[in-house]
Parts: sequence; C-alpha cells; structure tokens
Amino acid sequence: MAPLGERSDDPVLPDPPQGPLHVARTRASFPWKELALFWEGEDMLRFKKAIFSTLENDPLFAHPRGSRLSVEKYQELNFLRCKRVFENDFLPVGDMLGSLPRVLALIECLGMYDWSLATKFFLHVLTFGSAIYSSGSERHFKYLPKIFSLEIFGCFALTEVSHGSNTKAIRTTAHYDPSTQEFVIHSPDFEAAKFWVGNMGKTATHAVVYAQLYTPGGQCHGLHPFVVQIRDPKTLLPMPGVMVGDIGKKLGQNGLDNGFAMFHKVRIPRQDLLNRSGDVTPEGAYVTHVKNVGQRFSESLGSLSSGRVAIVGMSVVNLKLAVSIALRFSATRRQFGPTDKEEVPVLEYPMQQWRLLPYLAAAYALDHFSKSLFLDLGELQRGLLGKDRSVRQAELGREIHALSSAGKPLASWTAQRGIQECREACGGHGYLAMNRLGDLRDDNDPNCTYEGDNNVLLQQTSSYLLGLLARRDRGGARIESPLKTVDFLDGYADILGRRFEGSSPEDLLDSSVPLAAYEWLVCYLLRESHQKLSQETRSGKSDFEARNDCQVYHCRPLALAFLELTVARRFHEHTHQPRVPPLLRAVLQRLSALYALWSLSQHTALLYRGGYFSGERAGKLMESAILALCAQLKDDAVALVDVIAPPDFILDSPIGRADGELYKNLWTAVLQENKVLERASWWAEFAVHKPVVGSLKSKL
Amino acid sequence: MAPLGERSDDPVLPDPPQGPLHVARTRASFPWKELALFWEGEDMLRFKKAIFSTLENDPLFAHPRGSRLSVEKYQELNFLRCKRVFENDFLPVGDMLGSLPRVLALIECLGMYDWSLATKFFLHVLTFGSAIYSSGSERHFKYLPKIFSLEIFGCFALTEVSHGSNTKAIRTTAHYDPSTQEFVIHSPDFEAAKFWVGNMGKTATHAVVYAQLYTPGGQCHGLHPFVVQIRDPKTLLPMPGVMVGDIGKKLGQNGLDNGFAMFHKVRIPRQDLLNRSGDVTPEGAYVTHVKNVGQRFSESLGSLSSGRVAIVGMSVVNLKLAVSIALRFSATRRQFGPTDKEEVPVLEYPMQQWRLLPYLAAAYALDHFSKSLFLDLGELQRGLLGKDRSVRQAELGREIHALSSAGKPLASWTAQRGIQECREACGGHGYLAMNRLGDLRDDNDPNCTYEGDNNVLLQQTSSYLLGLLARRDRGGARIESPLKTVDFLDGYADILGRRFEGSSPEDLLDSSVPLAAYEWLVCYLLRESHQKLSQETRSGKSDFEARNDCQVYHCRPLALAFLELTVARRFHEHTHQPRVPPLLRAVLQRLSALYALWSLSQHTALLYRGGYFSGERAGKLMESAILALCAQLKDDAVALVDVIAPPDFILDSPIGRADGELYKNLWTAVLQENKVLERASWWAEFAVHKPVVGSLKSKL
Repeated sequence: MAPLGERSDDPVLPDPPQGPLHVARTRASFPWKELALFWEGEDMLRFKKAIFSTLENDPLFAHPRGSRLSVEKYQELNFLRCKRVFENDFLPVGDMLGSLPRVLALIECLGMYDWSLATKFFLHVLTFGSAIYSSGSERHFKYLPKIFSLEIFGCFALTEVSHGSNTKAIRTTAHYDPSTQEFVIHSPDFEAAKFWVGNMGKTATHAVVYAQLYTPGGQCHGLHPFVVQIRDPKTLLPMPGVMVGDIGKKLGQNGLDNGFAMFHKVRIPRQDLLNRSGDVTPEGAYVTHVKNVGQRFSESLGSLSSGRVAIVGMSVVNLKLAVSIALRFSATRRQFGPTDKEEVPVLEYPMQQWRLLPYLAAAYALDHFSKSLFLDLGELQRGLLGKDRSVRQAELGREIHALSSAGKPLASWTAQRGIQECREACGGHGYLAMNRLGDLRDDNDPNCTYEGDNNVLLQQTSSYLLGLLARRDRGGARIESPLKTVDFLDGYADILGRRFEGSSPEDLLDSSVPLAAYEWLVCYLLRESHQKLSQETRSGKSDFEARNDCQVYHCRPLALAFLELTVARRFHEHTHQPRVPPLLRAVLQRLSALYALWSLSQHTALLYRGGYFSGERAGKLMESAILALCAQLKDDAVALVDVIAPPDFILDSPIGRADGELYKNLWTAVLQENKVLERASWWAEFAVHKPVVGSLKSKL
Repeated sequence: MAPLGERSDDPVLPDPPQGPLHVARTRASFPWKELALFWEGEDMLRFKKAIFSTLENDPLFAHPRGSRLSVEKYQELNFLRCKRVFENDFLPVGDMLGSLPRVLALIECLGMYDWSLATKFFLHVLTFGSAIYSSGSERHFKYLPKIFSLEIFGCFALTEVSHGSNTKAIRTTAHYDPSTQEFVIHSPDFEAAKFWVGNMGKTATHAVVYAQLYTPGGQCHGLHPFVVQIRDPKTLLPMPGVMVGDIGKKLGQNGLDNGFAMFHKVRIPRQDLLNRSGDVTPEGAYVTHVKNVGQRFSESLGSLSSGRVAIVGMSVVNLKLAVSIALRFSATRRQFGPTDKEEVPVLEYPMQQWRLLPYLAAAYALDHFSKSLFLDLGELQRGLLGKDRSVRQAELGREIHALSSAGKPLASWTAQRGIQECREACGGHGYLAMNRLGDLRDDNDPNCTYEGDNNVLLQQTSSYLLGLLARRDRGGARIESPLKTVDFLDGYADILGRRFEGSSPEDLLDSSVPLAAYEWLVCYLLRESHQKLSQETRSGKSDFEARNDCQVYHCRPLALAFLELTVARRFHEHTHQPRVPPLLRAVLQRLSALYALWSLSQHTALLYRGGYFSGERAGKLMESAILALCAQLKDDAVALVDVIAPPDFILDSPIGRADGELYKNLWTAVLQENKVLERASWWAEFAVHKPVVGSLKSKL
C-alpha cells in the first residue's frame, strides 16, 4: 500500500528523507502512508499537497516569519500574501459551501504556514462574508462579489473596548432618521469604541458593525448588524466621522491588523441594516418576524457558532505542529544513558513519553472531533439555508451550540498546555524563536479568549445538559439528541449505580473502559450540579447568584467532562469501526485508549469521591495503563508524526525537520540570522565610553 | 501606623492615587501600609524605593520595553542601561556578600523593570564573578576589580549545543602543553560549541569555559573551569581562534545577547585554570585535594545551587507582577450583572476569584519562601568561605540542594501557570502586548528549563528524601536536618496511620489542616516511591532503568509535594508567629490557608486512594473551604496587590495602573503607539494593484 508514494515524480506522500530519524521510522508498527490515506483520504491529501507546494514555490512565502519582522513590515507582507491566496484561488467561492471539509483543510494549510495569513483571509471571506450573507438579505448580496474580487475588504465589529463577553451591553448606537432614510452610527464615548477587530487596523474598507437600533421616538430594538463603510477603497483613508486605527502589538498574530473604530454620527443608508431578523421601514417603523429581543439577538449572532467550530480546528493545527516538533526533537536528542559513554534519545525516558505522547493522542482525537463537528455544522447550515423549521433542526442547533461552546475551550486549552509542554520538553532549543514553539503558543493563545471566553462559554454547555435533565424530570421524555451525544444520559440512574471493575492493567488498554467511567463521571457531575443549583436557589439566592456559585466545582467540570467524553467516544468509534485497515488497528486503538485514560486521569479524585473507584488498586491500574500505552506508542511516535506534520518548509522548525539532522539544521538556521558574527554596532559603548562606577550614586 | 506615608514630601509608601480602585481599597480588612512594613521592613522599602525612583527619573529607562524594539536596538539599549546600573552602584560589591537580602531585592527591582537588564547585570557580576571567586584562587582575583569597573565583561559557558542537562558529557577539551605552559581549548565539532551563553552573543570579553582537562599522556581529569578571553576589550572583536556569535531571537529576554562559541585550539596561560578543586603543575602533573572525578565535578558546580535559589526569587517576581495586573483589572472591569442594566466587577464572580486569588496567595507564600531560602543560602556560603568542614555544614549543603532543586520547578511552574491564567483572565486586553503579560510569560519561561530542567532537577530532591529513608532503615538514626524541613519524616509510620477528621468547612480554614494532610501525603509518596524502586530493582532492571521507571507517578510528585509542604509550612509559621500585628493576622492566615489548600487540592486523588480521605464529604469540604477563602479574600485583593506591586512606571501596564482608570490608561497608551491612525505605507497594494482572482490557479 504505497502507490501514493510511487505513482509519479512528485508523489503525494514522498518518502521521508534519510537521516537520523530513519532508525526510529523502521521501528514503527504500521505503514505510515496507509494511515495518512485512511486519516485524510487521497483527495484531501492531494488538495493539501497542492496548497503546500504552491506556497513553497512562491518566493513571496519565503520565510522569515513574523517574529523576525517589524509589525509594519509583517502586516505589509501578510497583505501581499493574502492577495496571492486570491490569485491562487485554492477554493473557489462557489465550492466553499459545498465542501466544508475543504474549507477546514484550507484553514489548516494556511494556518500551518502562518495564522496571521489564515485569519486575515478568513475574517474577510468567511466571517465578514457570511455575516452579510446570513444576516442580510438580497439587497446586500451586491457586496459579495466585491469581497471575492478584493474591491472591498471586510471586518466584523462586535466587541467594544469595555464589552466583550457581555455582547448585549454593547453601546454603539444606530438611530434611524426618516427624513433622510439613514441610520446614524455613533459611539457615545471611548469606552464604546469597537476594539480588537481583525483587519480593521489598516486594511478594512467595510465593517459589519453591531449597534443598538433606535427608531424615531427613542425605542431601542436591541443589537443589530449594519454594513458601514470605514475607509475609501481608492485611498484607504478613513471616511468622514470615522476614527479608525491599529490597537498595537499583540502577543502573537501580528501580521493581522487588529483595530479600533469610533463613529461620530456617521450616516449610512437605511438599506445597510442587515435585516434578516429585523428591519425598519422607510418611515421608521420596526418590523420583525422574531418575537423578542433575546431571540432576535441569538439569531443575529448565529454565525458565531461556526467561528467556535473553526477555532477547534485551529487549535488542533497548533497542537499537531507542536507535537511534531517536540517528538522529532525527542527522538534525536540524546542525553544521559545507562553508562557515561552511551546516551539514549530522550524519547526513551518514560517521563518524556508521558509528557508528550498523550498530547500526540490528543492531536489525533481532537483532529477527528474537529472534522466530525465540521460535518455536523454543514448539516446545520444546509438546514438553515433551506429554511428548515423542524424540531430536529432546532435540536441540532442547540446540540452543536453546546458542543462548540465546550469544544473550543477543550481544544484551545489542550493546545495551550500541549504547546507549553512541548516547548519545555525541547529545553533551551524550544526557547529559540526559530524553532517556532513560541510563535505557536502566541498564535494559539487568543483561541482561549476570543469568540467567547472559555470559562464563560462552558456555561452554555452545562446549561444545555442541565436543561435536558430538567425537561426529563418535568415530562419524563427520553433524553436524546440528533447527534446522539447525550443519549446515554437517559440511563442516568443506572449509570450512577455502576462501579469500576477492572482488575489488571490490561483491562484498561481499550478505550471502552475509560468511556464507561466517563459516562458515570458526567452523570455524577450532572447530579451534583443539579443538586447544588437547586440548593443555592432554595437558599434564596437570585438566579444570577445561584448560577455563579455553581460554576467552579460543578458546572465547569461538567461541561469539560461531557466534551472529553464526546471527543473520546467519537475517536473510539472511529478507531474501532470495521473499515479500519488491519495494520492500523492496534496503533489507533492505543491512541484512543491513551487519550481517554489520560483525560480521565484528571478526574480521578471525583471517581474516588463518588465511589466509582475504591481501594488503591483502581488508581494504580489507571497509572500503569497510561504508562504501558506510552511505552507501546513510543516506537510509533515518529511515524505518527509523519502522518500529521506538514512538509518541512511549512513546519519551519530546524529542530523539527523530517530528516532529524537536529544540530546540522539548527546551525544552518543560526548562521542565516542577521549579523550573527558581526560586532555590535554599539561596540564603542563598551570599549571606549567607560562608566564611572558610582558616579550617579545617591544615598539609599 | 502610617508614618511611612506621611513623613516627608516623598514618602516611602505614598497613598495610592484616587480613581475607580478607591472603592475597592476602602473595603480592605487591614491597613496595607502596615502589611508592607511587616512584609518588607522599613529599610528594604527605602532601598527598593530608591532604586525604582532612580530608574523612573532617568530618561534612559523610559519605555518602550523590548517587544517594541528590534533585537539589535534592544540589546544596545539594554547594555547602556546596564552601564547606568554601574554608575548608580545601588549595591557596592563589598556589601553584596554581607547583605544577601539586598542582593535579592536588587534582582527583584531590576527584574521588575526588565529581566533582560537584570540577567545581563547579574550574569556578569554574580555568575561570572562568583565562578571566578569560588572556583579560582588568589591568582585569579585580579579579574574581580576589572569586573566591577567594566574593564572586562563576563559570561559563564557550560552548556553546549548538544549537552545541557547531562553536564558530565560536555565535550570541549583543554589539553595541557608543558612546553609553553598553556592549555589548548578546543571544540571538537559544531555539536560541542558552547551555546545559549548569556552575554556571549555580543558583549562578553571573557568566559568561564568548562572543558575536559587532559594532561600530557592523554589522561582526562574531568570537567574544569577555565578563564578564556574571547574578545578584545579594546575593540570587541573576537580573539584569534574563537568563533563567537549571537544565537538569534528567543521567545523572551531579547535584550540579553545569548551566544555561542567554538574554540579552534585557543591557547591560554596555565594560570587561567580555575584551580579550586584541581590544578596542573608547570610540568603537567595533575594535583587535587578532592578524591574522585565525581566529587570534584560537584564541587566545581557548587555555584549552580545559588543560581537555582535566585530563580525561585525571579519566578516570584513574575508572579507578583502578573497577579497585580490581573487583579487590578478584575476589580475595575465590569461585565454582566444581576440585571441587564447593572454590571459588576468581574472580581465579584466566584470563578474569577478562584482563577486568580490562589495565585495571589502563592505569590505571598513563595515570596516568603524565596527570602527564607536566600537566608539559608547565606548561612551555607558563610560556612563555605569559612572552610567549615563539619557534618552539619555538609548536611546543610545537601538540604539546600534538595530545596532549591524542587523549589525552582515549583516556583517557575507556579509562575508560568499563574501568568497564563492572568493573561486569560484579562481576556483580549491581556493579549495586548503593552499590558505586559506576554513579556512576563516569555521572560519567565526559561526559568522552567535553564540551570537544570525542572523535571530532571526534581530527581535530586526525591533522591535526597529516599536517601534519608534508606539511611534510617539501615542504621535506625533519627531523620533530621539543619533546617528541619525533613524532621517530620521521623514519625513516618505514625503519620501514615493518620486520617482526615474535619467535619465542617470551618475546620479547614486554617493552614494547620492542609499541613497535616501534606505530611501524610509526603510520607505516602515516599513509601510508594521506595516500594516501587525496590520492586523495579528486584525485577532485574539496572539502576538507570529502575530510576527512570519510578519518576512519573512516584518520585516526581514526591519531590513536588515535599516542596509544597515546605513552602506552606514556612508561610504558616510566618503568619502565625506572635509578632504578626493583630490587624494583619486574619488576612495573612487566610492567604496561608488558601495556598496550602489549593496546592493540596491537586493531590486529592492520592488522599482518597491512600485512605487519608474517605467518603464524599472530605473532598467537598475542601472545595467549600477554598471557595470560602476566596470569598473572604476578594475584598482584600486590591490592598494585597498594593503591597507587592511596584510603582506604575515599573509595572508598566495600562490595565494594571494603581488608579484603576482602566480605559483611560489603555487609550492613552494605544494612541502613543507608532503610526496608530496613519494610513498603511502599502495602501496602494490594496487600492491600486488589484489581484486577478485565480490568475495563478493550478489544478488541484
């Protein structure tokens, strides 16, 4: 099974280069090309390969990456690269809706190269574009071709300097003036300035601006989206009344120009209200098909859910890159050994395996989850476009909302911690900027806080679960959902009666065992959360207080455990299905077991506390099983990385190159840096201008 | 008790400025100036204040900080600032040994301003200087005045590109040539190049180079330190045979020039061997008072222990700065509320309290630990200088080695996680570079891996504890140590029989309860580690294998739990002593209880597994107590920050300023950035040069 590697001079899956990693590859228990084909499919492998090759062959994409450029230069280069993506038209607009997996793959490929580029491109095309498409109506479709021809450049302006999570409290206003049939967009003060808006800093000509809509007479109809022109496309100078600028350097993604804008009574045509959920007549009457402000608000923000699903995928990319770098490093870096003469690769140490291999398993588990959630999202969007108003469609919307609201936290945090572990596991070399772990950490970081702060978002998921329980308690209906992620909760009472029954480490080497434990755990946390919430409410607290007092040790772990279970279950099913090629079963099932057990091991205290575990043995078995799986997987690690790592040019990390020539690659890169061996320009400050010690001393 | 604030026009503790944080300050349960005085002492407050004021009043120290400068400019500015520190001579050389607390305070003050400056200064003065002083002899003291007059600039070159942790395997060689009475320093290949050496990149003229010493005839005597001139102080050009350069951009601390060096048969005088532990006669005979290579090696590396103690202090500084920023932000940032009209500061949410307040408690607990460990180190160093060869002195050395080997991991990781939590808790504003949480994270990061990788270092501590147990088992002697950190282990068997007996959350509100639990936990992990190690050895594994197989779930948590106990115990004793002013007792004891409980709660699974906890109630009590302590401390948080935060100029974070004018400060800073409102220089790339979509499209 290696036709992909042999069919032409430019194979889709070329053999890895010879080098020190060769030995590690020969120890793998499975053929990596077969796993690549199973994991991605041939069509997707070709699609990604074509994108990667295009970037590699275009000098505009030659490194250096951002951390070695001034912010201004980086933003310019990033814009030029963004234009080049249009010229290459990797995924024509018409194909986007029809092929969500390709959209995800394009995000992945551009993001693997550089997140500044990917976010710049997708904020314009997808976030701005789909806000117009899904919140507007036919009268707004004129904007769409202009997006795709770069006649205009867009951004999505919801967050204000003093309001992020609490979007309802956004303070920008849009007063309707029937005398001119215009809306007057206004920022009452600096605190109401739009802030953090990607593409707004230097590039955007148009923004979808969320503002409180007022009709004549002063009635407020809540937050609505408007298309507001902020710069002249001919000059990129601001439009009258718009104060727009760049918010300055961020921890990462500095090729993207995040900006702010204040509006001083800026007038826009009535038609530029995106009127899907509410409209204003020329005379100034407000009309809507949606009953209340809250529901209208939810509808107009529906597009944020797809943002969260995308962030799951973005986080996974970062985790894949980080573990690829750290594991190739660990398989070639030698330190200490059984004797003073003989040193072993650091990956041979159980400690190093335990630090890194669970994150490799997590990269696979979350990658599969991300792809499956993208498909679920596609189903939801087809229903929305087809105006499906069925109960199932509504249930599907709620379920995907719950999955993405905890999926984004789980994926972004796993990536955050994984990258940090990888950076530390590479020691000093991980601290060298050129090896890219710093950029990955910095670029991944906003995934934890934007499109909804992780801790705030988790409440959406726990509320969904608590709501299902309440509904069953009220009506006795079965608990079930379109994607079946919650169906097990129907056996709630039975599950709570289960106990762990393993007796040897081997019993835990399949993911079915941790899955059963997870079902118990979610039911336990659901019961605890429900009881705690009832108790707080009964004690006379307001809803607001009662909910807040249940987060830390109840609703938060409930939401996370539910998502971990869902990710682990989908990965378990994917790796245990009959169509898994026989040679791949063992390694995939080990990854599945390791991810599930390692995740579960964060909750051991609750397993004991609630009585699912008892005695010393249960906890020790779990630890032994995790270490056994790490030991079984360590010889497969390099091959598993070959499946998920992009080509060397894209990975762009001297210590992570596929040949494993760790020190040669590092030196080559070090010596290419700027003025490496040159004397400092300020040498005379040392050599000539000597300080007089204590000359400025004051009495302390 | 406010004389410090009232005595002059320039009080040591000025009143905080008026502003939105004023209300939060009025809610504090204690007078913050009294705590500042108790915590630091008046003398230290004045010392720090003088340093901070000097920096603030000198335009050379005006921001911007590094992240907004090119690496080259930043290195230049950092060198000029380093010279200015000499001109100010805050702590004359003669006073350094006599006042270790002032050394720590100077590290703290310069580090609070910028770690690049602090590390540049201290690597030269302390690391290079004390390597010469403590590894050399009188013939080397000629270098010392040159260090302090900046006639030479020094660095400490141990690590090589392929060897860090395993220092014994360092490959640079020093062959003695009796014909010229010189050593020939040589790097056999690129992998043996010195690498990562701070100050070596652009500045250093001299290095302490560790190399394998060979005498004529080819006998190797192990690693020895040599003084090697690498650049001409008159020109800063490299010396013949030395290839020296800068390793390139790092994740942080880019004002410091980390460098590499390869030596091509560089000849240095025989006298430049630092000969404290071994010397070579003019004829080429090796002489030493130390018996074996291993012991000689340990002795010559003794100075690394003080490096680790310093890193504890450096990590604490980063944690103090981060919690100061995040807590002031949280006390002023409002989001959501009981009604749509009314928003509350995010610090009112139990979730936000739980995310941040334990790190505030950790900052206090670790700050006290760091200071006390510095005093212990002083005792050790006085013994070394006085050639104390007593058993107690040796025991003290081992104990401090164990404390610093786990103290550095505990402090650096706590800071790492704390800074990340703070960054996320500030949402998007935490991702803005100007607010400094990114710089703190980046500058703290190397603390986790240099001077010994954290995970590798922890083995030193667990081996120390296992050794004590083995010694007792062999001879039946009491377990005790000079600093009494291990004395409780003498009651090992009794302690293992203890069980948790609390019955209400109030029982846990004093740190004595978690301390008792920690004693049990350390004994449990010690027993488990001992049994596991014996079992692995009995099964026929080599020492090397057996030790490696005991790290993950045994020796590693043992070392960490022991250090957490030590930190918590010292903080407990400090906060429960009679001389604590009455008004401060409640708040300090709450901090002590919160730190101990929160740390302990990471180990709940083991408390259950080993039978110390049983039943649901124990775990729930612990959670309730943690939340209760957070609720009790949240009104004290701003005042507690006022005690540990430096002046605004030093903290340099718009969202963390003492007045709490969050948005005003943020806007002022945003508008001071470079070309904020200016059109991008590359505007025509958008406005004029339009891409032809798909023009470069290839078939995918």
